[in-house]
Amino acid sequence: MIINFSERAHNHNWDLDPIVRSLLDTDFYKLLMLQFIWRHFRDTRVSFGLRNRTARFRLADMVSREEVVAQFEHVSRLRFRRSELIWLAGNTFYNTRGIFQPDFLEWLERDFRLSGYQLSEQNGQFELLFEGPWVEVTMWEIYALSILNELKTRTTLKAMSEFELDILYSRAKTRLWSKIEKLRGVPGLAFADFGTRRRHSFLWQEYVVEAMHAELGGNFTGTSNTFLAYKHDMEAIGTNAHEIPMAMAAMASSDEDLRASQYRMLQLWQQTYGGSLLVMLPDTYGTSQFLQHAPDWVSDWTGERVDSKDPFLAGDEFIEWLRQRGADPRKKLVIASDGLDVQDILSLHAYFMGEIQPGVSARDFRDASDFADTRKWKPVRRIRFSAGWGTLLTNDFRDCHPRNEDGLEPISLVCKLRSAEGRPAVKLSDNYLKASGPKELVEHYRDVFGLAGLANIPVVV
Amino acid sequence: MIINFSERAHNHNWDLDPIVRSLLDTDFYKLLMLQFIWRHFRDTRVSFGLRNRTARFRLADMVSREEVVAQFEHVSRLRFRRSELIWLAGNTFYNTRGIFQPDFLEWLERDFRLSGYQLSEQNGQFELLFEGPWVEVTMWEIYALSILNELKTRTTLKAMSEFELDILYSRAKTRLWSKIEKLRGVPGLAFADFGTRRRHSFLWQEYVVEAMHAELGGNFTGTSNTFLAYKHDMEAIGTNAHEIPMAMAAMASSDEDLRASQYRMLQLWQQTYGGSLLVMLPDTYGTSQFLQHAPDWVSDWTGERVDSKDPFLAGDEFIEWLRQRGADPRKKLVIASDGLDVQDILSLHAYFMGEIQPGVSARDFRDASDFADTRKWKPVRRIRFSAGWGTLLTNDFRDCHPRNEDGLEPISLVCKLRSAEGRPAVKLSDNYLKASGPKELVEHYRDVFGLAGLANIPVVV
Repeated sequence: MIINFSERAHNHNWDLDPIVRSLLDTDFYKLLMLQFIWRHFRDTRVSFGLRNRTARFRLADMVSREEVVAQFEHVSRLRFRRSELIWLAGNTFYNTRGIFQPDFLEWLERDFRLSGYQLSEQNGQFELLFEGPWVEVTMWEIYALSILNELKTRTTLKAMSEFELDILYSRAKTRLWSKIEKLRGVPGLAFADFGTRRRHSFLWQEYVVEAMHAELGGNFTGTSNTFLAYKHDMEAIGTNAHEIPMAMAAMASSDEDLRASQYRMLQLWQQTYGGSLLVMLPDTYGTSQFLQHAPDWVSDWTGERVDSKDPFLAGDEFIEWLRQRGADPRKKLVIASDGLDVQDILSLHAYFMGEIQPGVSARDFRDASDFADTRKWKPVRRIRFSAGWGTLLTNDFRDCHPRNEDGLEPISLVCKLRSAEGRPAVKLSDNYLKASGPKELVEHYRDVFGLAGLANIPVVV
Repeated sequence: MIINFSERAHNHNWDLDPIVRSLLDTDFYKLLMLQFIWRHFRDTRVSFGLRNRTARFRLADMVSREEVVAQFEHVSRLRFRRSELIWLAGNTFYNTRGIFQPDFLEWLERDFRLSGYQLSEQNGQFELLFEGPWVEVTMWEIYALSILNELKTRTTLKAMSEFELDILYSRAKTRLWSKIEKLRGVPGLAFADFGTRRRHSFLWQEYVVEAMHAELGGNFTGTSNTFLAYKHDMEAIGTNAHEIPMAMAAMASSDEDLRASQYRMLQLWQQTYGGSLLVMLPDTYGTSQFLQHAPDWVSDWTGERVDSKDPFLAGDEFIEWLRQRGADPRKKLVIASDGLDVQDILSLHAYFMGEIQPGVSARDFRDASDFADTRKWKPVRRIRFSAGWGTLLTNDFRDCHPRNEDGLEPISLVCKLRSAEGRPAVKLSDNYLKASGPKELVEHYRDVFGLAGLANIPVVV
C-alpha cells in the first residue's frame, strides 16, 4: 500500500473541521422566508435569542467557548458559491421554476451577510443573541443550532475508542434500517426530512437522507436541507415558520391590527409565492381562532402545517373547517412536524389516508402498532397527509451508546425571534404551556386571541 | 482532497484478492500436529477429502471453478516468511519457549510444500481430494475450508448494494456487541476463538478477535488462528485433532493394536510435547471406553476436549473418572468446542465453575438464560472450564442480511482424513449417527471399541 503523504500531512494541518460548509446547509424555508423578508421587510430590525431548554446538559461545560467562536467565525466568512446561486435560479422547487428572483439572487451574491452575535455563559449554558436587520439575523437560526448540536456530539464522541465509535454507528445504522423496513411498501406514504436543526451531525444527516432516498423512493419526498437537496438532486421541502407572523404581530399598532396581522402575513406570502408553497402555519396564536376568523380566501390555500396541536385532532379540525368553507379536503394537505417517530407517521398516514371504520377513533390509530400493514385499513384518502420527520430521523441514537451513557440524547435547543423593531415578540401556540414572550404581553395576546382549542389550560378554581 | 492515483490504479490492476495471505493463517494445532507428523510419520501417505454436508447450498453453482483454482494456486505458492518462522521459534506457546524445534523449522523453511489437489464437481457440489505424504496433505484442511467459505460469502455479497453491505456489517457488529455485553464481567470466564475454518471471511474473523481481545481482556484467552495470534500478540490456542488417532488406527495391524492405538498416540504426543499441551481428545472411538481402559498415566494429562458428547455429561464423566483415578479435578481442564454460542458458554462455565445447589441438575443450567449473573451461583470450581468458540463467533450473521435472505448462513463443510497408507480411516465419535468411514469397517470398529456412552444408538426390536 502506498501512503498518501499529502493527505496525511494535510490532516495534521487541520485547525478546524467545519460543521457548516455551505450557506445552503440550512432549512429551505429559511431561504424562502429570506426572500420574503428582503422583499417586504428589508429594513426591519429584529433580535433572535438562542437557549438550551434541556438544563441538565450543561453545554458550556461540555463545549469550549473557543470552539463555538471558531465555528461561528467560519460561517460568518462563508459566501454563496456561484454554482449554488445558479442552482437556486435554475432549479424547480415545488414544480415551479424561478421561485428565487434575479434581484434577490443578485443581492444574495453581492450583499448578503450574517449579523454579529453576542455569546455569553450563564449557569453552564451558552446564551446567544443576534441583533440587526432581519435579513442578516434570520439565517443564524439553523447554522447556530446545528453547530451547537454537532459540537455537543463531538464532545461525546471524543470519549470513545475507535471500536466503540464503530459499535455506536453500527447500532445507529441497524436502528435506521429497522425504521426503513417498517416504512417500506406502505402505499401513498409521504414524508420528508425536517431534521437539520437537531441533527447528530451533518454527515449523519446526509447518510440518513441518502438511505431513505435510495430505499424508499418516492415515499421519501425530500429534505428540508437545501444543501443536501442540491448535492443529491432531491426535492427541497418547506415553506414558512413562526418568525413572520410573530414579527408582524409585534409591529402591530392596535389590537385590531394584531388580530389581522396573522392574515396579512398570508396575503403578503401569496403575493410572493403561489401554488404548493401556500402552506399555512396557523398555530402561532391558536389554530382554532385562526381558522374561525379567517377570510374566505384562506381556504384556497394548499394546506396547513400542524406544529403544536395533537395532529389527529388538528387534521380533523382542518377537514371540518374546509368542509364548512366549501372546499374539498381530499385536495388539501396536512403536514405534521412535531416530534414524530416512525410509528406516529404510520398511524397518522393510516388515519388520514384510510377509511375509518365505525367505532374506530383517533385514539385507536394513535396507539396501534400495525398500521404499516395495509390489510388493516382501506386507502380512501380523507385528506393528503405528509410527515415532516425531524429529530428522531436525524438524531435517534437511543440505545446506541456502547456504554449506555446519555451524552448523545438530543437536547431542546431553540433559536427564536425575541423582538421586532424593539418590540417583544410573543407566541401562544396551541399548547398553553408553550407560550413564549414577556408574561404581561402573553396575557394581553391571550385577551386578544382567546383560548379556543388550546391544550393544557390551567384550571382556575 | 488529493487522489492517491497509484492506489487507485493498483486497485484496477488486481487480479486476485487472496483469501489466505500467510501459511500461518491456519489453526495452531495444525502446526503442532505437522511437527508431530514430521517427527513420527514423515513418510506416511494419506488422503483427505472435502465435502459439503449442507446439500441445499449448491456451492459449485454459486462459486466458479476458476475462482477456487486461483485461490488454491495462490496458497500453493505461499512460503513461510522469515519473520513468521522466527516468531514460531522465539515465541512462548502455552508458557513454553522452543515448542517448535530448529530441525522442524528448518524443514518448514526449506522443504515444506502442499500436496496437489483434485477438484471435481458433482450434483452442484465441489469434491476435493488431497493425496500424498501426510506432511504435505494435512495443512490443506484449513486453507481449503476457509477459501471455500469465503468464496461463498463473496458470492452473496456481490448481490448487495453498497448501502446494503453497510447495513449487513452494522447488524453483524451490533450482534457481536450484544454478545460482548453478555460476557463482560463474568468472573473466571475463559474462552478462545476456534472459528477459522468456518469464518465469514478473514477480515471479519480479525475484527471479531480484536474486539474480544480489546473488550474482554484475559477472559478471552486467545485464538486458534496462528496468523492472528502472530499479528496481534495474542495467545495461539489448540493442541490436536482426530486425524492422528484415526491415522494410527487405520494403520493398526490387529484388533488389539487398534484398541491400543488411541493410547499410543498419547504416548507419542507426550514424548513430543508436555505440560499444557497434554489435552486429549478422547471421543474418536467413544469417550467412555477410552477413559475406562486408559492406562493410569493418562490421568496425569492436563485435560480433555469434548467434541461430540453433550459437554455437561462429558465434563461430569471426566470429573468422576479423575476422582476414581485419584486425580484432583479442580486442577484439570475440560474444553468444549462443538457448536457453542454465548449462552452455552455461560451455562457451561457456571455449571463447572459454580457450586451446584441441591436439587439443581445439568438440565437447569443448560436451559437457564441468566448464568452471566454471578449472584445466581457461587464460583467454587469443580474443574477448570474453557470454551472453544467457533462458527457462532466468526460467522454469526443470523438476522443480518438486509433482505433477510439466507446466503450467509454457515454451511457444514468438512475436510477429513480418508485413508492412511491406503487403508480407510474411521471415526466413531460419541454420537452413533456421526460415525464416518466405510460402513463395514465402522461396524468392525464398533465391535472392537463397543458402544458404551454413545448417544443416538438405534433401538433394535
